[in-house]
Amino acid sequence: MPKTPVWKSIATALTSEIAAGHYRPGDKLPTEAELSARFGVNRHTVRRALQDMQERGLTHARRGSGVFVMAEPTDYPIGKRVRFHQNLEAAGRMPAKRILTLQTRPCDRDEAEALQLKPGDPVHVYEGLSLADNVAVAIFRSVFSADRFPDLLEDLDHMGSVTRALAAVGVKDYTRASTRLTAKTATATQALHLNISEGAPILRTVGINVDTDGCPVEYGHTWFVGDRITLVVEG
Amino acid sequence: MPKTPVWKSIATALTSEIAAGHYRPGDKLPTEAELSARFGVNRHTVRRALQDMQERGLTHARRGSGVFVMAEPTDYPIGKRVRFHQNLEAAGRMPAKRILTLQTRPCDRDEAEALQLKPGDPVHVYEGLSLADNVAVAIFRSVFSADRFPDLLEDLDHMGSVTRALAAVGVKDYTRASTRLTAKTATATQALHLNISEGAPILRTVGINVDTDGCPVEYGHTWFVGDRITLVVEG
Repeated sequence: MPKTPVWKSIATALTSEIAAGHYRPGDKLPTEAELSARFGVNRHTVRRALQDMQERGLTHARRGSGVFVMAEPTDYPIGKRVRFHQNLEAAGRMPAKRILTLQTRPCDRDEAEALQLKPGDPVHVYEGLSLADNVAVAIFRSVFSADRFPDLLEDLDHMGSVTRALAAVGVKDYTRASTRLTAKTATATQALHLNISEGAPILRTVGINVDTDGCPVEYGHTWFVGDRITLVVEG
Repeated sequence: MPKTPVWKSIATALTSEIAAGHYRPGDKLPTEAELSARFGVNRHTVRRALQDMQERGLTHARRGSGVFVMAEPTDYPIGKRVRFHQNLEAAGRMPAKRILTLQTRPCDRDEAEALQLKPGDPVHVYEGLSLADNVAVAIFRSVFSADRFPDLLEDLDHMGSVTRALAAVGVKDYTRASTRLTAKTATATQALHLNISEGAPILRTVGINVDTDGCPVEYGHTWFVGDRITLVVEG
């Protein structure tokens, strides 16, 4: 019979304690040293258990502060102004982005239509992960006209933030004309990036951001992890 | 080796013709008589094939008009006024509701909070299916204070429509304060009602409708089939 690895039984013990309300959403878990002492194992084993719990979205680590029980799904407002950093900070989470790809390539028909270009016109494509408190909550893909914003790719590379990169190329403000929302299930690739299971629920949003003249500047797709984000639409 | 049933091979043939664009979204399929002649089978077999395609969301039947290729997912606006009948008609679909349960029971804590009641206060609960062109696109559950609207259950039973039933008890208008959206996967029960697979993507909305005085009148959950409805939020 296969023996349960020690790290796994520690993760199970801590998980049941969270489920039982012993540790509540937002609570700090004991330190690695305290957990090592409690379970009579070395720190490596404790770290492995904590890593597993983080990957399952149960906890998150804050550099220098410790490990915290994951709070309820983060509320994320969808409306006229959709700003990742502002939205996350308003929800009391620490926002971060991780770049997956930055490239310039010919646009497809959908992208051409959204950005009022001709199919094949060059576009900058920014794909990345959105993180809340160090846990991936979404994958995004943002597409911009490369003819209109020749230097945008470098700005995105430096700044990460779309809002700041667009400001640097002269777009001081932009708003969302409409957002389309569909429920999907995670593909194998999405599951890998987001640390979820293939087939887990995903909320996909598709939106076009326009500048103050009503010209489209960004065509964006975002795939949110179903149980980490709740989208909120104000009436 | 198991032999493919004839109805299945007919469904497969028609499905490939739809996929190839031979029949396009909104097109009428040939009649049962025409399909019987074409495939050299009786009408019962054709009906079985069409039934299978309808269950997979590929086609829908309109009483007296025939069978049509399912159009693209229906756009469903989410905002200040969420009205099922109006939304569906605006999208060119025929709306219908089918009652699953109508009951009065004590409310739980969430319902009490949403409707500003005390846990255990009586509420009317209306659960049903929302259909577009005879295909189930959502399951909903609407909860109302039974003390405030003693006769609402009968009105819902007669009228089906929440808007009309509320008007009958004096609520002439109501608006949505906010809507919360989460991606889920279908439970076995939901899958049965909606003719989808267990684990298929579901978009759950939770909203509170308030009257013109800002008092909550309806606490509603809706579970939309992911590939039959696209929720649209105007910016």
